[in-house]
Amino acid sequence: MTEQQKQALNVEIQEAAGGVTAAAGFEAGGLHAGLKKCPDKKDLAIIHSLAPAVVGGVFTQNKFAAAPVNWCRQVVAGGRAQAVVVNSGNANACTGAEGAANAAEMAAVCGRALQAPPEQVLVCSTGVIGVQLPMPLLRGGIAACAAQLSAQGGHTAAEAIMTTDLYCKETAVSYQYQGKTVTVGGMAKGSGMIHPNMATMLCFITTDLQIEAAALQQAVKEAADASFNMVTVDGDTSTNDSMLVLANGQAGNETVQLGGAGYAEFVQALTLVAARLARLMAYDGEGATKLLECQVCGAPSLQDARLAAKAVVGSSLVKAAFYGEDANWGRIACAAGYSGAQFDAAKVNLSLRSAAGEIELMREGSGLVFDEETAKRILQEREIFINLDLGSGEYQATSWGCDLSHEYVNINADYRS
Amino acid sequence: MTEQQKQALNVEIQEAAGGVTAAAGFEAGGLHAGLKKCPDKKDLAIIHSLAPAVVGGVFTQNKFAAAPVNWCRQVVAGGRAQAVVVNSGNANACTGAEGAANAAEMAAVCGRALQAPPEQVLVCSTGVIGVQLPMPLLRGGIAACAAQLSAQGGHTAAEAIMTTDLYCKETAVSYQYQGKTVTVGGMAKGSGMIHPNMATMLCFITTDLQIEAAALQQAVKEAADASFNMVTVDGDTSTNDSMLVLANGQAGNETVQLGGAGYAEFVQALTLVAARLARLMAYDGEGATKLLECQVCGAPSLQDARLAAKAVVGSSLVKAAFYGEDANWGRIACAAGYSGAQFDAAKVNLSLRSAAGEIELMREGSGLVFDEETAKRILQEREIFINLDLGSGEYQATSWGCDLSHEYVNINADYRS
Repeated sequence: MTEQQKQALNVEIQEAAGGVTAAAGFEAGGLHAGLKKCPDKKDLAIIHSLAPAVVGGVFTQNKFAAAPVNWCRQVVAGGRAQAVVVNSGNANACTGAEGAANAAEMAAVCGRALQAPPEQVLVCSTGVIGVQLPMPLLRGGIAACAAQLSAQGGHTAAEAIMTTDLYCKETAVSYQYQGKTVTVGGMAKGSGMIHPNMATMLCFITTDLQIEAAALQQAVKEAADASFNMVTVDGDTSTNDSMLVLANGQAGNETVQLGGAGYAEFVQALTLVAARLARLMAYDGEGATKLLECQVCGAPSLQDARLAAKAVVGSSLVKAAFYGEDANWGRIACAAGYSGAQFDAAKVNLSLRSAAGEIELMREGSGLVFDEETAKRILQEREIFINLDLGSGEYQATSWGCDLSHEYVNINADYRS
Repeated sequence: MTEQQKQALNVEIQEAAGGVTAAAGFEAGGLHAGLKKCPDKKDLAIIHSLAPAVVGGVFTQNKFAAAPVNWCRQVVAGGRAQAVVVNSGNANACTGAEGAANAAEMAAVCGRALQAPPEQVLVCSTGVIGVQLPMPLLRGGIAACAAQLSAQGGHTAAEAIMTTDLYCKETAVSYQYQGKTVTVGGMAKGSGMIHPNMATMLCFITTDLQIEAAALQQAVKEAADASFNMVTVDGDTSTNDSMLVLANGQAGNETVQLGGAGYAEFVQALTLVAARLARLMAYDGEGATKLLECQVCGAPSLQDARLAAKAVVGSSLVKAAFYGEDANWGRIACAAGYSGAQFDAAKVNLSLRSAAGEIELMREGSGLVFDEETAKRILQEREIFINLDLGSGEYQATSWGCDLSHEYVNINADYRS
């Protein structure tokens, strides 16, 4: 399904309160198990579906995929999951056979506490690479956390998965389907595709929709491609990146099949939740002073639109120019030009927009004379929109990124902490 | 030809004095034509072959390729060239039909001054994007420059193509072939694949070898793949990147054919000159405090070795860690992991080396305990070598990059100047 088709659907989507426990039949919680030194910082979270749920997931393509990623791939292949246990402070990556055994034990301990089969417990980790997990702390922490889950616990869980994140990332929406209310809610962490040592973006979304596992898996892929795969902070893809979606059927609708009734509506709601969380991640990018949203239109294919949009927000030179509030539009054109996207350079239009106004910089491939003062005023805002019309087709895509600041260098040049 | 085969060749290559006029029968010069505001800064250079020469060239893949790039592509397709005229201070990119006419006129003015056909005059520009060239200044400057060319003028020409470069980049070598001395010398500019506005890397190499145009073109491609295509400062590919090689046959050898006698020796010498200039470019990367050289071995193919090596020096997180002199090896593994290179993660070894020593950080895919003080001492040097053994084959590749510093952000957040 193209983004055009999705937009044509026009399901009426409502805001909903909460995050990962907004949908019916989910509970969650978080606490300090001791992986992080500071006792005020939570480092362990559990999400639990009260009813059996189906699961879909997409994961990092990194060759050094962490032990918990390998574990989750197996769970997702089985199609069913009842819980997710997540720790921050340690990525359990580059940890060999011992790391794999530890991931399996986290699932076993959590499954025992929640009376769920361990092969239906997802495990995620984020933090320093190459160090073994402190299992005694985790065993105690998982048991304690499992005992205090609640339907109001979504926010606490969202706090517990933060690392260098400055903002807690949660959102939820609902829509009507077959006379039932379907809710989709989620939480995420990540302020770079990878962090100083605090590797990883993680995203957990729950829904009470009744849906077949194969349909859910395809929906997750589609939503990820239009959301998390369109965010870049620094171009680095972590060893632990994971997006997991649980669907427990508590809305009471007839089971949604791949491509059948209700599938497109769900993809639209899921994509909206994922895109909001992705946007929050860019907003909270390491050292970011500005959110950059690049809206590409006029591309000959969706793939071309996405390539161009991602290259623009991924360019270090574009990012540094926005940090300096400099309308150096040549860098935006240049990034689109090397993105691999197909288009006719002589047909490209470019403008910048923010709450302070809009300014046209390039028309039909040639630069325009523009007012520097107006440009400066537009660029002083916290959120900047880059509108790039390739003039070569009907497809569009949106990407999110942030500027490149001194603070990014500070954060990432620091000693491992 | 693989890098392994090249290394097995073992032609005895000697150092030679000079740069782009080191080879017999070339003259060059440079002066201030007025494109740059500061009268001390040269902004126009000409290279001239006294005898008819063949030409090979590779260019940016950017969709917004500048007008002079389009001009040069036509000249290179013809296979013959007698001169190169280069300006700095203005890229002549995103300038439409007027820009194309101006590039053609630069060739015409230079050809008239040197009594060469304009379709055998190469044109290169580097500088701000989207502004038309000041043609009256260029007409006068080209005529004046053409009148003062000399065989000693290589260094002056190398100065005239600098923009934000801190160092002048020249090198030359010679070797014996059929009892004749063959010299290969060149100059380059660039301290990022693209500059603040001073877009572009440019490289000009001359040789007195007698070689067929088709063979020269293939040799240029092979040398570029192992040199300039293995450098990254910020991952941005400019609208003007060009590498041009002129061969005028003054060494007096029998004409070298593609794949025939003398071809492999020439590729080896040309690659050495290009790789040295590429390394100088990384050394002079915008804001760089350290040169990073990543040597990948044990790859299942040359392509895999190159992908992994480029990803490591291209990672913002790796670059920031080296700026902070922090042995955060997880980021190096992570970058190789997402590079797209094929390898077995459980067989990877990693160490760092500099003039101060060597330290092993990862063995067979798992992290090692290491001495932080030793690591710090190694990382305090100006040139750092990253040795990454993928343990999965026989191929190797080398890439060059630099660290990511506060100064990079300063340079690139500045107003267009």
